[in-house]
Amino acid sequence: MFKNLGAKTYLYPMPVLIISTYDEFNNPNAMNAAWGGIADYNQVTVSLSEHKTTENFMKTKAFTIAVGDAEHVANCDYVGIVSANDDPHKMEKSGFTTTKSKFVNAPVINELPLTLECEVISFENGTLIGKIVNILAREDILGEDGLPDLNKFNPITYDPCHHKYVALGKVVGSAFKDGEKLK
Amino acid sequence: MFKNLGAKTYLYPMPVLIISTYDEFNNPNAMNAAWGGIADYNQVTVSLSEHKTTENFMKTKAFTIAVGDAEHVANCDYVGIVSANDDPHKMEKSGFTTTKSKFVNAPVINELPLTLECEVISFENGTLIGKIVNILAREDILGEDGLPDLNKFNPITYDPCHHKYVALGKVVGSAFKDGEKLK
Repeated sequence: MFKNLGAKTYLYPMPVLIISTYDEFNNPNAMNAAWGGIADYNQVTVSLSEHKTTENFMKTKAFTIAVGDAEHVANCDYVGIVSANDDPHKMEKSGFTTTKSKFVNAPVINELPLTLECEVISFENGTLIGKIVNILAREDILGEDGLPDLNKFNPITYDPCHHKYVALGKVVGSAFKDGEKLK
Repeated sequence: MFKNLGAKTYLYPMPVLIISTYDEFNNPNAMNAAWGGIADYNQVTVSLSEHKTTENFMKTKAFTIAVGDAEHVANCDYVGIVSANDDPHKMEKSGFTTTKSKFVNAPVINELPLTLECEVISFENGTLIGKIVNILAREDILGEDGLPDLNKFNPITYDPCHHKYVALGKVVGSAFKDGEKLK
């Protein structure tokens, strides 16, 4: 039996995207967003209402997106519940430190393992579209093939119904392969 | 130390979205997409190149998105590697059966636990935007609060670097709560 839940936004998995920008004084800021993902071969999209972050990237035309991880759940959550408009010391209190991206005019959070460095393509009706210029990865999360390895880092997902952060678990199959069994 | 990986599309977690449509003869079709997510309070977005699916939803103005789960990895993968343009019996072979949505002109996959029923708002430059009209959930995945419960179903995620399907794991924190510890 199935049940209608109405017009909700329950999708699984949702990401935990930490979006970082500089303000007009080059102060770093970060926020937490779940509504976003890859939009094309070199593009990301994030749905955002008005934030300090949106003001910032409209000026700098740049932002980074870091993948939230299990080791920094409290830090990731903190940047989502405190606004830099209310507390100018938000970033110091967040426990995150930053370094300027070598590719775009935006900060990279030093503590998070994987960061997409992006230029703003457009921001219309709350929808940010960015060009991925580079992905920066902490070396210790890379496998022997030089790619991010889920055995070496712990991205988190957002449960939109119970407002929990959930880690990834076991590999359960292979894409472009398991389906062959049904042919 | 950090390493530059270039302009790639490595983001974690990525969803496994099974998009279903009817063709002009009311035959159901389904495909598998990783580039998409919630776009607004009642909207989804998916990035798609030309597929049978795109032809279909431009005619019917409707589609559904089901969340791929661990119990149906091979079926979800199958609909991603076989095109209905090449095999008209794709859906029968997929192992999925469908029922027409009560809300939109699109099929619901009976075997998958959670489905977003959507109307097409726009499809431009490969970007589909849909209005979520209803979410349909199998009753056995709902908790006592009536909401989808991750202890009762197993959504999968897509590892873009190693083409694996990965289940969700443990709860590691609480949104809007863990961050309070840092205040």
